[in-house]
This record gives sequence, structure tokens and C-alpha cells, in this order.
Amino acid sequence: MSTELRRPRVSAFLALSLDGFIAGEGGDLAWLEPYNGDSQEETGYSALMASVDTLLMGRNSYDTVLGFPEWFYGDKPVVVLTHRPAAPREHVSFRQGALAQVLDELWQAGSRHLYLDGGEVVRQGLQAALVDELILFWVPVTLGGGVPLFAGPLPGALVPVSSTVLPSGLVRVVYQPA
Amino acid sequence: MSTELRRPRVSAFLALSLDGFIAGEGGDLAWLEPYNGDSQEETGYSALMASVDTLLMGRNSYDTVLGFPEWFYGDKPVVVLTHRPAAPREHVSFRQGALAQVLDELWQAGSRHLYLDGGEVVRQGLQAALVDELILFWVPVTLGGGVPLFAGPLPGALVPVSSTVLPSGLVRVVYQPA
Repeated sequence: MSTELRRPRVSAFLALSLDGFIAGEGGDLAWLEPYNGDSQEETGYSALMASVDTLLMGRNSYDTVLGFPEWFYGDKPVVVLTHRPAAPREHVSFRQGALAQVLDELWQAGSRHLYLDGGEVVRQGLQAALVDELILFWVPVTLGGGVPLFAGPLPGALVPVSSTVLPSGLVRVVYQPA
Repeated sequence: MSTELRRPRVSAFLALSLDGFIAGEGGDLAWLEPYNGDSQEETGYSALMASVDTLLMGRNSYDTVLGFPEWFYGDKPVVVLTHRPAAPREHVSFRQGALAQVLDELWQAGSRHLYLDGGEVVRQGLQAALVDELILFWVPVTLGGGVPLFAGPLPGALVPVSSTVLPSGLVRVVYQPA
């Protein structure tokens, strides 16, 4: 990575249907349940979490995560991109503004590798060419509707650097910008 | 393959954008040109063509193929699914009806492995669970619109049996029905 970047390295890590949806209608994630049997070593989640120093997610993802029975992220800093008021919570901070500006602020604050989470934020990152590593898990089903990952042509080309068939039936593909 | 099948084995082989389109608006295929550098051994086209005894394509694909400067298929029988009149041509025959019925007729006529070509026909085959091998090439671009491969949920699960990053930047994934 160039030292000129002046922003954290950005990784995204998400599952999508063969027709490009990261969630079904109304944010439904139940269709993913048959495919959650891979270990965190197999998916690469362990390695990613060992490398990232900060999570950056959208407000919808944060609200979803808050509804889970446990908090997944330990004491890793979580930054939520939102313009709506939110209750304070340990290790969680809230920011608003364009993604590039927030990345600059996080760089100034010391972040060097960031896990970008949530469909809308990842879509923003892709459209702004701010994603350095896109780890896709193709789920071998189609949904026919829901929340798409992509929104029109990307500004730059992506290059696949690896692809792997996981035991669950997911195909993991890692892309980097050309 | 079960001898109960009583229809040819059906393979499909196609490239699609990360957002699920096999062609852009108006059938545009120019976006694929930067990705045509892989050899027929690398893509598996040679092996597939050595195995199939018949090509089955939709009328749109046939009309597209007729517009190409050369005929790609040698003396391999080509069956075109169409209900519109078409000019006779050596090695080409025309059929109409539901795909399952046509597959049965081709089985009776001796076909044992068929290459199914064209978005609409492949979509029909997938929706009717008549595709035994789906060879997808993920092109690392998004189109935002065009001719989609999928049309709603599939009737059965697909299992990836291999995935490979090709030199051009395509990711080749082979799926079979569960």
C-alpha cells in the first residue's frame, strides 16, 4: 500500500446470492443459515479480525448487530456512520459525512486497516473506489429480490486474487482494485 | 448420471457480471472483450465441446451467432429452440415446445450430452431444474442493467464443485445440482 494513501486500508467481507443480493426482502438473512457452517479459519474471518484495528459500519448494520444476543467485537473500536442520534455505548463511536472524509479522520486517529460492514456502506465504498480488498462469498442460491450489493457500474476494475470452494458450499473470492 | 434420466446431460457455460447480467442493455457483449484472453483449455471450452454431442440454443443466440463472421460449431448438430420460421442451414434443426419435451426428443434421437446456450434457454433450464452442470465465469465488472441470468429463486440447491481464477481475471465456478 502506498504511504500516499493517507487513509486506512479498507476490507469488506460479505456473502451474496448468485443474483447479487446481500439480504432478502426486508433485510431477511434466514437464507444464509444453511451456509454458516464454515470455521472462522476457513472463511478468513479470524485472519481479517486479527488484522483490522477498527470496524466501520452503517446504521442499519449497527441496529441489526444491537439486536443480536451477544456483542461480537470485544473491545475493538466500532465506528458507526449515521446522521441520526444513537445511545452511547462502550467502544462505539458515531460519525457522519462522506466516507472519504471519515476515512481521513480515522487515519488521523491512527487506524490503519478497517473492516467495512453493511450493504449500503460497502456499496458507497465501491462506488467511490475506496475498497482495497473485497472478500465475496457467493451463496449458491438466488433470491429474486432484496438488498443488492452493487448499484451500477464500478469506477475501476477489480482483479480476483484467489477463489476457494468452502465446505458449506460457499465460493470465497477475494478481489482487489486493478 | 442415473440411467433413469431419459434425457441428455445438460451443461451450460456462460459469463456474467458480478451483478448477474449475461449481456448489457440491448444484448451488448462489448464489455466482455477485455476478458476473452483465456485459452479454450483454461476455460474448459475444449473439454466441454469434446464431450457434448449437440448444442441447444435459443433463437436470439442463434441470430447472434449467424451474425458472426464464422460458424463456430463445425458439423456438430445445433438445435435451435424457436417458434418462428427460420431459413434451413446445414447441421441446424429447429424445434419448439417446453425444454423438458425437447430434451426427451433429443434423447430419443440419441443425444447424451448437450450444451445449452443463451440466456433465456439457460434460465428456463435452471427454473425447470434441467441443468446438470452450470459453468459460470464471473466477470469482475458490474453493468447495472441488461439481460439477467437468473429470474427468481431456483427450484433446487446448487453445489460448487470447483473454482479457479483464470489469467484474464475471470473466476470460473462449476456448479452441479445438490
